Amino acid sequence: MTKTAKAKSIRRQRRKTKTVGRPVKRMVKASDKPVKRPRGRQSTVAALAELKRRLLEISDLNFAGAVLSWDQATYMPPGGAAARGRQGALLSKLAHERSTDAALGRLLDALEPHGEELPYDCDEASLIRVARRDFEKAIRLPSDYVERASAHSSASFTAWTKARPANDFAAMRPFLEKNVDLSREYAGYFAPYRRVTDPMIDDYDAGMTTASVQELFTALRRELVPIVGAICDQPAADDDCLRGIFAEARQLDFNVAVVKRLGYDFERGRIDKTHHPFCTKFSAGDVRITTRVNAADIGEALFSTVHESGHAMYEQGVAAALAGTPLGSGTSAGVHESQSRLWENVVARGRGFWQHFYPQLRSSFPEPFRNVPLDAFYRAINKVQRSLIRTDADEVTYNLHVMMRFDLELDLLEGRLAVKDLPEAWRARIAADLGIAPDDDRDGCLQDVHWFSGGIGGAFQGYTIGNILSAQFYAAAIKAHPEIPHEIARGEFDTLHRWLVSHVYRHGRKFEPNELIARATGAPMTIGPYLEYLRGKYGELYRLPATL
Amino acid sequence: MTKTAKAKSIRRQRRKTKTVGRPVKRMVKASDKPVKRPRGRQSTVAALAELKRRLLEISDLNFAGAVLSWDQATYMPPGGAAARGRQGALLSKLAHERSTDAALGRLLDALEPHGEELPYDCDEASLIRVARRDFEKAIRLPSDYVERASAHSSASFTAWTKARPANDFAAMRPFLEKNVDLSREYAGYFAPYRRVTDPMIDDYDAGMTTASVQELFTALRRELVPIVGAICDQPAADDDCLRGIFAEARQLDFNVAVVKRLGYDFERGRIDKTHHPFCTKFSAGDVRITTRVNAADIGEALFSTVHESGHAMYEQGVAAALAGTPLGSGTSAGVHESQSRLWENVVARGRGFWQHFYPQLRSSFPEPFRNVPLDAFYRAINKVQRSLIRTDADEVTYNLHVMMRFDLELDLLEGRLAVKDLPEAWRARIAADLGIAPDDDRDGCLQDVHWFSGGIGGAFQGYTIGNILSAQFYAAAIKAHPEIPHEIARGEFDTLHRWLVSHVYRHGRKFEPNELIARATGAPMTIGPYLEYLRGKYGELYRLPATL
Repeated sequence: MTKTAKAKSIRRQRRKTKTVGRPVKRMVKASDKPVKRPRGRQSTVAALAELKRRLLEISDLNFAGAVLSWDQATYMPPGGAAARGRQGALLSKLAHERSTDAALGRLLDALEPHGEELPYDCDEASLIRVARRDFEKAIRLPSDYVERASAHSSASFTAWTKARPANDFAAMRPFLEKNVDLSREYAGYFAPYRRVTDPMIDDYDAGMTTASVQELFTALRRELVPIVGAICDQPAADDDCLRGIFAEARQLDFNVAVVKRLGYDFERGRIDKTHHPFCTKFSAGDVRITTRVNAADIGEALFSTVHESGHAMYEQGVAAALAGTPLGSGTSAGVHESQSRLWENVVARGRGFWQHFYPQLRSSFPEPFRNVPLDAFYRAINKVQRSLIRTDADEVTYNLHVMMRFDLELDLLEGRLAVKDLPEAWRARIAADLGIAPDDDRDGCLQDVHWFSGGIGGAFQGYTIGNILSAQFYAAAIKAHPEIPHEIARGEFDTLHRWLVSHVYRHGRKFEPNELIARATGAPMTIGPYLEYLRGKYGELYRLPATL
Repeated sequence: MTKTAKAKSIRRQRRKTKTVGRPVKRMVKASDKPVKRPRGRQSTVAALAELKRRLLEISDLNFAGAVLSWDQATYMPPGGAAARGRQGALLSKLAHERSTDAALGRLLDALEPHGEELPYDCDEASLIRVARRDFEKAIRLPSDYVERASAHSSASFTAWTKARPANDFAAMRPFLEKNVDLSREYAGYFAPYRRVTDPMIDDYDAGMTTASVQELFTALRRELVPIVGAICDQPAADDDCLRGIFAEARQLDFNVAVVKRLGYDFERGRIDKTHHPFCTKFSAGDVRITTRVNAADIGEALFSTVHESGHAMYEQGVAAALAGTPLGSGTSAGVHESQSRLWENVVARGRGFWQHFYPQLRSSFPEPFRNVPLDAFYRAINKVQRSLIRTDADEVTYNLHVMMRFDLELDLLEGRLAVKDLPEAWRARIAADLGIAPDDDRDGCLQDVHWFSGGIGGAFQGYTIGNILSAQFYAAAIKAHPEIPHEIARGEFDTLHRWLVSHVYRHGRKFEPNELIARATGAPMTIGPYLEYLRGKYGELYRLPATL
């Protein structure tokens, strides 16, 4: 289960850089510094320096835009909104112009032979390779499309912020219809493709396709449905102890102490409050998280803070040498999510973690937990139930929420489902999958911001890929360091953190997700460790039969 | 007396736009949109729209840079510093390139005849006139100078932050020597001039010259010195009641209530804590202030908050139609300072103000003020004394601190004073003016950041001009609305605020300071009202002879 937004800003930032541009043919413009193929060592050095200078400028413009967005979400007074939107759009436009500059393409042409002579995994070769991939994507999109899509997404988001609380699907229907059209148009710029969502999936989780996600999800679903059924047939766990009155300042103090202990570095980060929690990055030395504190529910801020700190530790752990280049951030949505989920679920919803922290939590909040033994608390924070809202779902049922969104967006884009029929299709699917259905669209197809604020397609599968990978990475870390679970029970996280830095974080975007997973775990992505994790943890909690 | 920094960020922002550029001859560059002289109404409309579009982009880049600076001063973790400096410099560079674009010059050429046909004080004519003035200034500076000066200023500031606490003038000497050279070079780009500080004074207080400031200061000094002498010969006022323990949150609550009441609009602003208080602007709808709270001294945050809210009300009061253009901010350093001083000193250190607010202050802090009658409190907040630190000085002695800096910087730039002799010259001058001298350079010539973080010259005279004008504007407001003092004593500030908006704030930079002063007060700048204010207030407080 997660209650947090999905480090959207980091992903959105990368997406901008990767996918915003114009077709090669149209992008010829006067450049004051013609770039020739470098001859010899000297000119290669100069070309590399020029490449890095250009990429740093793009990165800095995007990071400056991220500061503006963060301020908008945290502290900006209402009067600042109009100009802030315009200022952010200007920075995006400037970054986009630089990302699609023909001179950048010529530099990459000139440097490619040099990159191919170098070892595949060295920084320079990786930089040239990844910058080339980003550039090729960026120049596919005409800038008029980028402007139309951006204007629509902004108008649609504003409409959604009113339509969702008003349960007004009719108001959103024209926005969603236009978004379906824009998303198909988007895919068209990356033709040929096998399935319309392939280009979007590649933006978020490079190397994956609609077919490979479907295969993964089908396999997982087959195993998951009986587990969900077996758990939900039992009486629900009692999580009343999580509800009460928990002073905000004390919650924040406790949560800061927890994520500090995990390894989130406050010298290079900070925590603020926002309506939706997120993680954002302004430079290698400034990776911030936000949280939302609910004084009536101890779990909300706690797990969202740990979740975002997982994203943040990934970004803080990228090798310093990659800072300010396209290699300087996490490699994909799914791998990013694996880190937030690993720390939030595998670690911070684990029994060992609370062996260490529960006494501290009790001393911060003596009254609510006076008569709650560790085991009862552990059951409460791992309560599984059929529920309507994805972001409130537990870690077992969560994936079913993701899968239905993945299927519905494919149906929308491939024309099997009309926007007007979405509410009904939503209710039918959630009833089939989870045996419950929402009374209204507010808690149905209007609940997630994704389809109403960005393109349709690509943004959901990463959540489940993240769950799968969280267990796969953790299992590989345990295999290398069997002492990790014992250390966690003592409140020590260094060994785990160092393994993740060394095998995942430091590489940034040097490797595509599949390469990274294979290098880190010795195997391609596989659902085995995740199922083993769920069966182990929930099998014990709910005394499930070993045959499940 | 003031304890605050001087809305430096707003001024620095304007200065960047106004003075950063390259000589006309060098700035020819390819422009994709050649601008021709508009023929007829249609093309004038198009040219004006294009002018505004370009100016808005410059303004938005500067405002985005201001957000980065604000974040750096308020919330940025230590690790963010290096990249933040680079990101801010990039935004400055982009704004600078646009401020000196030859196409902007051609647009202004094309629009000038149109502007001259319009009434002088209409928005369009003012926009064309002021944008032209800014452009002519901007293109004077070679960009290599801008880069050298900016790099030096940054290195010098960093060195100063260590050298001042260490009382290490020797460490700063080479920085200051280079800064003297750079400042002379700066002036050289604006040759011919009569005195080397003329170009810098014109940047901050357009229309003033070294000679006119000297004349003003000489006249003021002649009247001021005997008043200072007469007051300081008496026993110092007792201000012990301002020292104690004043809970930070309660101070902030009280101060927010005060500046809200004065008219600072929190829908378009906010208050945060910083090491040095300042006011900054991100758009017409987002003008923020910061403050520094000293739990041991109730006066520090209180008066600095009111001071900064004066700067902020000026910016919030600029007519909406001028937003995003070069007319959209205050007209000069001196006029800006007049508003911070008017609200801080004339209003918030006045007896009437405290007739209304003192009961509230006492109910917020009952213990410290239990036995302090209003009159004693009023004397405490207006204590006059010979002191070493400008930013701690009271409003009577403050101007002497300013005048010595003005004279010393002129001596440095005109070669009558060597940097190595500055500490001694400083001690001699403050001893002559105020009868005291610092034991060290920390409280002597190292105390102000100005000479160590920007060009030398131009930045100090505005403080005293602000004092002079605060009384002149206030007297004009009272003349128009004699009820204002009675309203203030009832905690009502609308009439005063509305008069200031109508006669000063709304005009933004449409008028040069001298024009604005004459329009608002019916007279050129004059020290009469300020001396009358000081004699009236301090004559009564210290029972000075009427002959002074």
